[in-house]
Amino acid sequence: METMLDTQFDVQIQNHIDQKTKPMGALGQLETIAAQLARIQSQASGSFSTTIDISSPQVIVFSADHGISEQGVSIAPSAVTQQMVLNFLAGGAAINCFCRANNIDFQVVDCGMVAAVESDSDQLILSRLGEGTKDFSAYPAMTATQLEQGLSAGSEIVSQAIKNGTNVLMFGEMGIGNTSSASAILSALTPLAIEQSVGRGTGIDQQQLAKKQDLIATALNRFDRRDVKTVLQQVGGFEIVHMVGAFLAAYEQKTPVLVDGFIVSIAALAACQIEPNVRDYLIFAHVSNEGAHRFVLETLNATPLLDLSLRLGEGTGAALAFPLLKSAAEFYNSMASFESAGVTV
Amino acid sequence: METMLDTQFDVQIQNHIDQKTKPMGALGQLETIAAQLARIQSQASGSFSTTIDISSPQVIVFSADHGISEQGVSIAPSAVTQQMVLNFLAGGAAINCFCRANNIDFQVVDCGMVAAVESDSDQLILSRLGEGTKDFSAYPAMTATQLEQGLSAGSEIVSQAIKNGTNVLMFGEMGIGNTSSASAILSALTPLAIEQSVGRGTGIDQQQLAKKQDLIATALNRFDRRDVKTVLQQVGGFEIVHMVGAFLAAYEQKTPVLVDGFIVSIAALAACQIEPNVRDYLIFAHVSNEGAHRFVLETLNATPLLDLSLRLGEGTGAALAFPLLKSAAEFYNSMASFESAGVTV
Repeated sequence: METMLDTQFDVQIQNHIDQKTKPMGALGQLETIAAQLARIQSQASGSFSTTIDISSPQVIVFSADHGISEQGVSIAPSAVTQQMVLNFLAGGAAINCFCRANNIDFQVVDCGMVAAVESDSDQLILSRLGEGTKDFSAYPAMTATQLEQGLSAGSEIVSQAIKNGTNVLMFGEMGIGNTSSASAILSALTPLAIEQSVGRGTGIDQQQLAKKQDLIATALNRFDRRDVKTVLQQVGGFEIVHMVGAFLAAYEQKTPVLVDGFIVSIAALAACQIEPNVRDYLIFAHVSNEGAHRFVLETLNATPLLDLSLRLGEGTGAALAFPLLKSAAEFYNSMASFESAGVTV
Repeated sequence: METMLDTQFDVQIQNHIDQKTKPMGALGQLETIAAQLARIQSQASGSFSTTIDISSPQVIVFSADHGISEQGVSIAPSAVTQQMVLNFLAGGAAINCFCRANNIDFQVVDCGMVAAVESDSDQLILSRLGEGTKDFSAYPAMTATQLEQGLSAGSEIVSQAIKNGTNVLMFGEMGIGNTSSASAILSALTPLAIEQSVGRGTGIDQQQLAKKQDLIATALNRFDRRDVKTVLQQVGGFEIVHMVGAFLAAYEQKTPVLVDGFIVSIAALAACQIEPNVRDYLIFAHVSNEGAHRFVLETLNATPLLDLSLRLGEGTGAALAFPLLKSAAEFYNSMASFESAGVTV
């Protein structure tokens, strides 16, 4: 429990915020974020911090394929995962646009797509656990060895980013079929019924939805749901287990993570079930149009910053919310106090 | 009606968005904004525009004092308006922080504070209509001449900004007592009862709230509410009438405005009642904690981008939402199409 977020600086942090030239609490959720970031920064430095440094933001998109997609539960074939990774590397995807607009560094990890990409881009990290997971409606998605490799690799990728200077992280994902995996994990780890945990992903029809629910129900009857790692091995995805490892490493290294949409939140949920103190380092970017996302957020006692009816993934919601963190840091760092500005309280 | 927003480019704009490498509609409200900005840009250039240019954003904060504040309906005395303007000019207020964080130019207009500030800052514009309005519970807030001067001056300030290169505007306000003025305008111009239109501003108590409601009721019984200009003259504020003129000028010069909170939205409402086509050029940044703001947004058929429990004014909500416009423009301008990226539809 040594990295449990310390509350000893809370009073000083709140005073620092309340002396700013504004009515108490008038900056709403931005004050909550500033306080959380200041708490993390104070924890990291071991003393009350009057500044927040989130000057080196990094998006890492974890990509992989899913055997379950062979069952026709997605709007697109697995080939699209690879095509989109090439699009990421060419700078043409939505997440690239939002990283450019907001000055966020970008990397993509091949966690195990069906087909690897040919690229010597320094934005690409190879961490392939296989050529996509097995179809989890019939088999465990991955072996215990693959699971452990994924957790370690995700952790290592985050450690490397932090070593390179990253001080705030955002994870994104790309993987045709991964809402099926995320919904299965959700119904395995929480009391949420399959009818509620399974949604339309990026846009399947009613028939595909029913099939997706049946396949997940079949899978969930096969194993003991009480163990997080068993759940991840049985119905997880290579990109999801990487992200679980990534969340655990961010927590261990006292680095805040701005959490994207449904899939990433499921990885966060799994990480929090492994180590509850992970939660203290998480800020939730948005609530997506995938219905079950709202439930995941409630389970994690999270108030998302944005509600823009996004349903894309890739880390797009996190990249869009990042400027709010920058503004929160800026007011915490440089806004005048009543005293310094000569404003009557 | 010559500057009514043209819909002739709508199909081309929607096609341009739908060919981007994402499921249809997956960027939610960001797609709506991109389409609106593209429509405005196409209108301005007279042809379908494949790019949106919002590279020169400008916040203009309109400041003034209100005679009604002598009645004790605010949390602070009028002196604070001037103190905060000095804080703006020193770069110490929340709006300065958010402009810095998001690379937005900043100006402040003295529209008629009780006491002028001594400053040679080029961020300060002098447009004083008087030394604060009269107490509108007893007298018309301003003369017909002051009203017309304010409308022209607001228009002129926006025209100058556009001449200097500004291509997207945000208005903010500072004026102790101005929620009283805004609530009075709201109940005059819409069917909303005074009990609903009047809130606690930045933080008054129950007794002050009751008094605020009584004073506004008294004022509203004095004149014919059907004429917008009469309403503005009777219960408006110098900063509010400047903003009404500013909105009308932005519309005439086909420039989008990102609308801040309650007070600024009331100015937008008044401008839309004078010229309904103003509405096409407005994007709404956020819904504030001032309860009646939600009603104003509904009246204007507006879906705000943010809901962060802000209740500060100064243009802070607009400055916080601006990066979302930047991201919308960036995806519209530079995101790959399915064809260009070789992604299977």
